[in-house]
Amino acid sequence: MTFLDQVRWNADGLVPAIAQDARSGRVLTLAWMNREALAATVDTGLAHYWSRSRRKLWKKGESSGHLQAVREIRLDCDDDAILLRVEQAGGIACHTGREHCFHKLYREGRWQDADPVLKDPEAIYGHDPS
Amino acid sequence: MTFLDQVRWNADGLVPAIAQDARSGRVLTLAWMNREALAATVDTGLAHYWSRSRRKLWKKGESSGHLQAVREIRLDCDDDAILLRVEQAGGIACHTGREHCFHKLYREGRWQDADPVLKDPEAIYGHDPS
Repeated sequence: MTFLDQVRWNADGLVPAIAQDARSGRVLTLAWMNREALAATVDTGLAHYWSRSRRKLWKKGESSGHLQAVREIRLDCDDDAILLRVEQAGGIACHTGREHCFHKLYREGRWQDADPVLKDPEAIYGHDPS
Repeated sequence: MTFLDQVRWNADGLVPAIAQDARSGRVLTLAWMNREALAATVDTGLAHYWSRSRRKLWKKGESSGHLQAVREIRLDCDDDAILLRVEQAGGIACHTGREHCFHKLYREGRWQDADPVLKDPEAIYGHDPS
């Protein structure tokens, strides 16, 4: 049994993968991996995910330049979630141009935008990706 | 539209929820929430999840005493993942008796156990829950 076989992939062949900044400890993103994405992450040392919207292997940062260099890969007790500790190129993980994706803070009954846009998405991608 | 309606629940009515230790920054667990679990978390200030194996609302720590007091709730840019910053009672989040669930570290082609059991699960639950 390989390390890929030990992962409990869901019915779609995916598991959730958390990326955490190795220096600040900030939780950057939650994305999804299939076998190919995890294998590519191990082989290259760069985070790869499965894009559910585009239905393709996605090298994080391939269009933005915001690559994630992987320092550590962990699997959880139930073998169905992955944690990456990464060095985030450019200090921006989110397609909105923010440091991380979890920028909506619950306060007084609603989600409030709590973190600044560090770089305009149009400047990152040449167009707004959202 | 309420804050519950804004969440993009999946086909099973769930979203992944990451719990992070508010003091150490350690990523403790990845669990799942449905509407009821998120509402109960907001209402009580204690992390509630949906147990996919037991198919019931699960107040984290209800049998172990290892409650998670919620300091912050965040939603991501795509509205389909939640991040909780918590104070972990007992310093143990994992049913294996470890501080956190991500104790399997990838090294040299396999997952290696990288973190100590702090308390025997039988001492926590009166039986081994695994």
